[in-house]
Order: sequence, then structure tokens, then C-alpha cells
Amino acid sequence: MTRPITFLSDYGLSDEFAGVCRAVIARIAPDAQVIDLTHGIPRHDVRQGATVLARALPYAPAGIHLAVVDPGVGSPRKAVAVRVAEEDRVLVGPDNGLLATAIARLGGAVEAVDVSLSPVRLEPVSATFHGRDIFAPVAAHISLGRSPAALGEPIDARELVVLEPVEVEVESGERLAATVSDVDSFGNVRLLASGDRAGEAGLKLGRPITVEIAGATVDAVYAFTFADVSEGDLLLYLDSSGGLALAVNRDSAAERLGVAAGDEVVLRPA
Amino acid sequence: MTRPITFLSDYGLSDEFAGVCRAVIARIAPDAQVIDLTHGIPRHDVRQGATVLARALPYAPAGIHLAVVDPGVGSPRKAVAVRVAEEDRVLVGPDNGLLATAIARLGGAVEAVDVSLSPVRLEPVSATFHGRDIFAPVAAHISLGRSPAALGEPIDARELVVLEPVEVEVESGERLAATVSDVDSFGNVRLLASGDRAGEAGLKLGRPITVEIAGATVDAVYAFTFADVSEGDLLLYLDSSGGLALAVNRDSAAERLGVAAGDEVVLRPA
Amino acid sequence: MTRPITFLSDYGLSDEFAGVCRAVIARIAPDAQVIDLTHGIPRHDVRQGATVLARALPYAPAGIHLAVVDPGVGSPRKAVAVRVAEEDRVLVGPDNGLLATAIARLGGAVEAVDVSLSPVRLEPVSATFHGRDIFAPVAAHISLGRSPAALGEPIDARELVVLEPVEVEVESGERLAATVSDVDSFGNVRLLASGDRAGEAGLKLGRPITVEIAGATVDAVYAFTFADVSEGDLLLYLDSSGGLALAVNRDSAAERLGVAAGDEVVLRPA
Repeated sequence: MTRPITFLSDYGLSDEFAGVCRAVIARIAPDAQVIDLTHGIPRHDVRQGATVLARALPYAPAGIHLAVVDPGVGSPRKAVAVRVAEEDRVLVGPDNGLLATAIARLGGAVEAVDVSLSPVRLEPVSATFHGRDIFAPVAAHISLGRSPAALGEPIDARELVVLEPVEVEVESGERLAATVSDVDSFGNVRLLASGDRAGEAGLKLGRPITVEIAGATVDAVYAFTFADVSEGDLLLYLDSSGGLALAVNRDSAAERLGVAAGDEVVLRPA
Repeated sequence: MTRPITFLSDYGLSDEFAGVCRAVIARIAPDAQVIDLTHGIPRHDVRQGATVLARALPYAPAGIHLAVVDPGVGSPRKAVAVRVAEEDRVLVGPDNGLLATAIARLGGAVEAVDVSLSPVRLEPVSATFHGRDIFAPVAAHISLGRSPAALGEPIDARELVVLEPVEVEVESGERLAATVSDVDSFGNVRLLASGDRAGEAGLKLGRPITVEIAGATVDAVYAFTFADVSEGDLLLYLDSSGGLALAVNRDSAAERLGVAAGDEVVLRPA
Repeated sequence: MTRPITFLSDYGLSDEFAGVCRAVIARIAPDAQVIDLTHGIPRHDVRQGATVLARALPYAPAGIHLAVVDPGVGSPRKAVAVRVAEEDRVLVGPDNGLLATAIARLGGAVEAVDVSLSPVRLEPVSATFHGRDIFAPVAAHISLGRSPAALGEPIDARELVVLEPVEVEVESGERLAATVSDVDSFGNVRLLASGDRAGEAGLKLGRPITVEIAGATVDAVYAFTFADVSEGDLLLYLDSSGGLALAVNRDSAAERLGVAAGDEVVLRPA
């Protein structure tokens, strides 16, 4: 039975890139279900791609997980297929850290293969579109039941590229300093900090806090959900992935605070 | 046999929200076909979501119709599954009026269930992403053939939230005043007024009219289609849903007129 | 067995247009797999639609190829279904040149049918949304195995509209002047010139060149891939479709050069 394939990239949808990858998959594995997670990762943003992929995969059916955010396409970075402990899932993509967070969350790698010269790649392999020529055909063949080992050269999984962790600074009962991971389409500001760090920093659910950003200080509440504050008010909340996030009820927190991915935010009990 | 699921939301496609909902569905109902109607409803715009949903569903196969535009997520608004008279279709979404126009067009509700505490919801239910945690799993289980009644608490269908109708003002043979529903991606301006009101107001196919918007008056023609006027000319026409709309042949009427959703437009025979 | 359908349009994804076409297909051919190539063709840009379609189809499974970029909808332009020599593929769309480049690349037309008055069209046919009312139902019925001839009136394939070719000017060993086809989502600038013309003009892989655009001259290198130049440097390369393109490593060439589709670019050996 053909296994389902999830697909995440920074290709956007204004071009045919993602569509052509899906076409390649359908040619090889006509019965494979392909689930687009998103193609809206900011171009070349490997770290955000890694965050979103790790956040999404626990909700996806076990299968093949194709991910392409690949600023180094054509350079000597490896192209890999990685089998993880949980449910025999296989991740396929560039070896630049994009897959690393998800691999860790899914029990770690149990097999890794370099597919750069895979026998199933489309010839001639272009220098700039490995999604079409390498990753999509490899993902399709694995969805048909072929083993990763049959599609490339085994490598040591401990040598896969990982991303340097982003630090969260906590002073006990005093403050928490975190980096903005990304802004969602509603203008909610997701931080690279899990919810359990809030307690350490003395931030308590239902209590006022202050948010410092670029010198300015703004009042907010650490609330359960948007509707717990008045329309237009700022809140800190635990988002649907268990991370800390800032929102304005029925408006855009990113616009209100003037923040973007990569900015630093300091939270304090008020 | 698994029934198909249509899916409409204001999630956009730049994030993984819509993709994660599809992943959740695929995990529960691997054979369900999911048809994305659009995820481009302007954020939190329940009325426009209701209009687009009602316009699209008559063209969709009978099945489950998942719709999420949910500014009150986390508030006490109900989460519902509603079976309608026509073809045993079931609509799933928040009880905020989003489903109401489509329910009326599909013969009215014959069964309504509050699924807020559905046994099939994903635990822990997040406070901000009921699409993933409640609506997608409920839709998936119904597509597998489970009855709505098995997935929640029966409620009185007459208590479902409905939207206040938007008035169209007509002076017989003189004028028609209508609200702009939305602007499509071609810049065509759709009005909340059905085509039969045009006749009442004295607007006749093939005849010149005037369009008043924000004080300014512009000449136009009530035409059958874009190609009936010269490139760059303004026309009133009956759009593909039977509603009145304004367009400029090969250009954007919204830009030409400077109008947006919610604006009022007055049409008169010239 | 139902054949797969690819789908390309200028509908965008912010409206329900593409979704409703998919809904119509699912109602007629519930088992048809629909592969969205892209709906991001700039509105009404028939030439770019033709280029992208021809570039994508060789990667798609043999089947039905639905394409809608249709500024003349409602005018007397024909609606057609065209069977080509390669793999019995059938293209469906408006007869305005959109299909022409792909038809030529797929071995040429062996059968052409005018489906404007097809018995399977949805009645009443709207004047502005033939994607929903004519093209989608025709594509769906052909995917079910019906012959194009059963769905319309045979026409002479030699009378199908073709696009005037865009000229590439080459002075041997001296210069190549080409038109910008489009800018992809990474800011790469694709030219309407195939790679073999570069050699004629004296441009050699690995060697410096100059790029003239709107009076200004910029230094670049004719390289194999992005990573062959330093971050921020301009390169000419052979893109994944075998055409010439300009890029800036990890940045946008279109922004750097200030170019857009339709502009003329001159390349010279340095």
C-alpha cells in the first residue's frame, strides 16, 4: 500500500515549483496521497522551516515527510532520506538542519542515506531544482515501499547537520527574554520559548505582565485565550503548539508591537 | 465509503494551519478526499465566509463541509455539526453565522449537534486552534460514516446563530443602493444584491447607467460580459453566482473606483 | 480507470474560483486526482501561462491538462479540448494561445474539438466563469474516459490560435538580447532564451559577463549554480527548464536589477 506524503517548502504558490514536484510524485506513485503542510516558509529560512515542520508532523499520518528549504542547492550539502524511530516515518530533504528538529521530536534517526546520486533521480539533474529532480522522486519511491537504503549511500546519522539551539534567558521570578520565531497570518507573534519557562520567570496565568520590545514597554495580560481580554488588548498566551505567543484580540500583535522574526522580546511580571 | 470533505477558512496558506487540519483528517480518514474551496477569506470576516460558502457548496459533491472563520475561538460560542435536508450534507464549524447562509440554501437544518466536547476531539484541546483539535476530527469521523449525534450533544437547530441580512435599497425605476460584498482577485467588485433587483431599479441590460461611490459619479453600461465593452471601460454585470457586480474590461474595477468590502454603491439608469 | 487531471490558472487562491472548479470535477469524477500546477499566473497573462504550462507538463502524468487564463471569456473565442500525440494527453482550455506551446512540445495536436456548446456544460453557462461551467466539466468527463469528440464539434487543429514567437537577438560572439519571461518567487529572472543561444553569443560557463538593463551595466558571471558565486553576487545560469536566467546568490535579482516581465536584457562576454 502506498504511504502518504506530507510536503513543506519555501517555494510559495505563485510559481509552478510545488505543483511540478507533486506532478513528479504522481507520475511515479499515482496512488500516493500528498498533503501540503505549507509552501509559505519565508524563502531560505531553514530555521523557521525546521520549527514549522516539527510542530506539524505529530499531527500527520505516518509516512514520508518531504521538506525543501534549500538555499545551498547545488553546493556540496547532502540530500538525505532519514528514517526515525516513531512509526517508521521517513523524512526527505536537504541536510542543512531543516529536518533536525522534527527528527529529534520523532524519536531520533535510526537510518540515514545520502540520496544525492540516487538511482531514481531525474536526469539530467538541474543545479537549482533538486525538489523536482531528487527529493520528489526519492519521496515517491519510498512511499511505494522501497527502502531508503536502496535509494542512496548509507551515512552516519550522527553526522546529520543540526541547528544551533536558540537560547531563552530566564531570571527566576523576574524576567524571560526570548526570540520571535515567526508571525502567523493573523499577526500573532510566536516566541522561541516553551510555556513551562513562563512559570520560572514568575509569569502567572490571569495576571498582568509587561512586554519590552526595542526599548518600549507595553502592558499585557498572560491569558488563556484571545476572548479573555477586550478587543484590541494585548495578551501573552500558550499557543496551540505549547509555545509562548503574543496576540491582540481581533487585531495584529505584530503590527501593534512592530516586531518581526528574529527580534528579541522581554517579558516581566507587572 | 468515505464521503468527500470540502474545506474553507481564513487561515491563509502562508502558515501550516490549513495543512495541519488536512493532516489531522488524513490520520483519521485516510481515504477522505479533501477539496480546498479557499483559505483566503479575509481574517475574521464571518459574513464574507458565509457568502462564499453558500456560493460554492451547490457545486460541491454531497459530503462534509468544513468551514472555519472563528474570531471567537476560545469564547463560549458553540462548535457545531449541522445536517441539512439536501443530499444528507453535514456542515461543521463554529456557530457564529458562518454556516447559516449555506444551511438555508441547502434546504435548512434537519439535525444540529454541539461538538465542543466531542469524544473525538484531540486532547488537550488548545484554546486557539479548534480547526485542528475539534472541527477537523469531527469532520473526518463524519466522513467515515459516523452520525453527528454520536459526536456531540443534540441542540435545537432553531437556535443556531444567523447573520442579520444586509439590506438592498431600491427605488422603483430610479436607483439601487447596495453594499460591496468583496473584491475578487481580478479586481471585480461583487455587490450584496441579486440580479433581479436590477430590473426593479430600472437598470436594463445593454443600457448606460451611472455608478455613485463616495460622492463621485462614473458612467458605465449594464452588460452581459466583459468583452461587451471596450478595454478599460466600466460595466455592471450579473456575476457567475447571479449577483450584481462591477468590472473594468481587462483591468481592476476596485482600483478604478477605489472601493472595498463594506462600501456602499448607488446604481441609476443614465 | 479515471485519468489524473492537472490544473493551471490565473485564478489565484484568495477566492473560491479554483476550489469551485475542483468541486465541479469531484462531483462528476469522484476518483479523479487533481494536481494543481499553479494558480498564480499573473491575471490575463496568456503568454506566461503558456510558458509555464509547457515547462510543467513533461513532468506530469499523462492525463487531462486543464488550463484557464481567459481574458476573452464571454467573447467569441473558442473553448477547446485538444488531444496530442504524446501519451494520449488531452489539453482543455480557451483557444487563445494558452495551450499552443505545450501542444507543440507534446508532439502536436492529433484531434481538436470545440466544446463551447458541450452537452456536459453546466447550465445556465455564466458569461464570466467558463472554468466552472465548461472547462472543468469537460475535463472531468474526459478523465472518466469519454472521447473529446463526444463532447463537442470537431475543428481543424491547424486553426488553433498560436502565439507569435518572441525573438532572441544574437550577434555571434558579441551579444544576446532577450526578453524577461517572468520573475519567480525567489526573485530569479527567467529569460525567453534557451541555453544554447548563450554559446552562440560568446558567453562561456565560468566566465565573466556584463548585463545591460535600462541603460545600466552590471557585472556578473555565467555560472553553474547559485553557490558558485559569493552571497550577493549576480550570476547568469541555465535554469531547471534549460532556459537562461539571472539570479543573485541568496537574494533577489529582480530587485537588484529593477526588472520585470517584458523588459529587455542584453548579455555580453566581459
